[in-house]
Amino acid sequence: MRTVLVIGIGAGDPDHMTLQAVAALQRADVVFVIDKGEARDDLLALRTQILQRHRPDGGYRLVTAPEVDRDRGAEVARDAGRYRDVVVDWQDRRADLYREMLTTELAEGATGAFLVWGDPSLYDGTLRLLDRVLDGIEGEWAVESIAGISSVAALAAAHRLILNRVGRPILITTGRRIADGIPADVDDVVVMLDGRTAFATLPAQQRAELHIYWGAYLGTPDELLVAGPLDEVREEILAVRAAARERMGWIMDTYLLRRGADER
Amino acid sequence: MRTVLVIGIGAGDPDHMTLQAVAALQRADVVFVIDKGEARDDLLALRTQILQRHRPDGGYRLVTAPEVDRDRGAEVARDAGRYRDVVVDWQDRRADLYREMLTTELAEGATGAFLVWGDPSLYDGTLRLLDRVLDGIEGEWAVESIAGISSVAALAAAHRLILNRVGRPILITTGRRIADGIPADVDDVVVMLDGRTAFATLPAQQRAELHIYWGAYLGTPDELLVAGPLDEVREEILAVRAAARERMGWIMDTYLLRRGADER
Repeated sequence: MRTVLVIGIGAGDPDHMTLQAVAALQRADVVFVIDKGEARDDLLALRTQILQRHRPDGGYRLVTAPEVDRDRGAEVARDAGRYRDVVVDWQDRRADLYREMLTTELAEGATGAFLVWGDPSLYDGTLRLLDRVLDGIEGEWAVESIAGISSVAALAAAHRLILNRVGRPILITTGRRIADGIPADVDDVVVMLDGRTAFATLPAQQRAELHIYWGAYLGTPDELLVAGPLDEVREEILAVRAAARERMGWIMDTYLLRRGADER
Repeated sequence: MRTVLVIGIGAGDPDHMTLQAVAALQRADVVFVIDKGEARDDLLALRTQILQRHRPDGGYRLVTAPEVDRDRGAEVARDAGRYRDVVVDWQDRRADLYREMLTTELAEGATGAFLVWGDPSLYDGTLRLLDRVLDGIEGEWAVESIAGISSVAALAAAHRLILNRVGRPILITTGRRIADGIPADVDDVVVMLDGRTAFATLPAQQRAELHIYWGAYLGTPDELLVAGPLDEVREEILAVRAAARERMGWIMDTYLLRRGADER
């Protein structure tokens, strides 16, 4: 039997690690790292810091794989169907890479770990990928998922928000999905993966009734927070976001759009 | 200045505590506990265990307040507007209780902590309540929210699920809200607070296309998990759930409804 742990390490604060995640990390013989390139040096440094803190004695092997390029041109296409094809193809190519890596690096009886930002269950593909990789692979393999603090939870904590109103729903969605507006039947919408700042170009009528609670680099010393009526703060967020992205070389941001924020 | 910490302690596994939550708990001079009555003895025991583990030296005061009764008859009414009124009234009465407790028990310069199940940002009212309690209170008060592993994250981890499909949204909602069916435009719906097992009485056409991933007492030694096509497992879940509720005296369960579960 071989075991693969998918460990949620939280949204950026090394103290987001749960005791369960620490214990899982301490069981790992091999830690797999996907190298996302220089733009994410800060993230890599944070992962290194987590490893040094919880495995100061070493005693594990670090295996780094290069990230598989997406077809970035097509990814930018706004068409959701095409976007999905591109992502699926990219995940197939990643599956080949991971299968090779896992079978080569993980001996019988050994435990490997993937350290995943946020929570493995929210907009992270590692578990899906492992499903594919291990489907039909030789030998017995077990997968465990260790929950982590997601950027959604970190955003809420930073703004001291409850995401839902009493007895009401929350939608978690992507920037792409709200390009034409947020759905009429949900008043609290958390937006992830919004590289194109969809909040700024929502229909004017929607913008007028929305508050935004925005955060970037959540949980890190670079954390940025802006909140207010969307029409009053959207220019500020665009400016803060552009400057930060320029300064840091990358940005990861998340936000809540709330209709009728004055109601409790 | 007085500080009130709202600490997410996770969904039931004491190892869900984050390092940040442990550090926050260690800063507390006073720990406030709302006594939910004997039915929740297991939860109270878990909270005690967490305190003993992370504050073995004591050094804090434990202040227990009785829970304020809801108007339970009215709560059962299916009418969403009336339900909301009842909850709001209940929260007003709780606010009076908490204001009294905080001003009496927390001295100038002191730090108090509320230990909250799951994550303070998901279907927990403590932050909302503190907003009311501290609005107009004398002196300077600071509130901090410490993110925790929610039952949603714990459910996903237990089933090794990614909650979203590629580029697609997730709706988190209540049993009451899906009584007439899940919305047409979302294929992944997490249901919380479903005391009336709404999954079992969804329209037959919807049931036929849904998978369910159900969990109760998540993260505890009593954890129960059932997953499968909804029509195939709903009777099993109803039976398992009823037996567990009888045995334990209470139940807390959560589930994901997924349309087209065979798609990746």
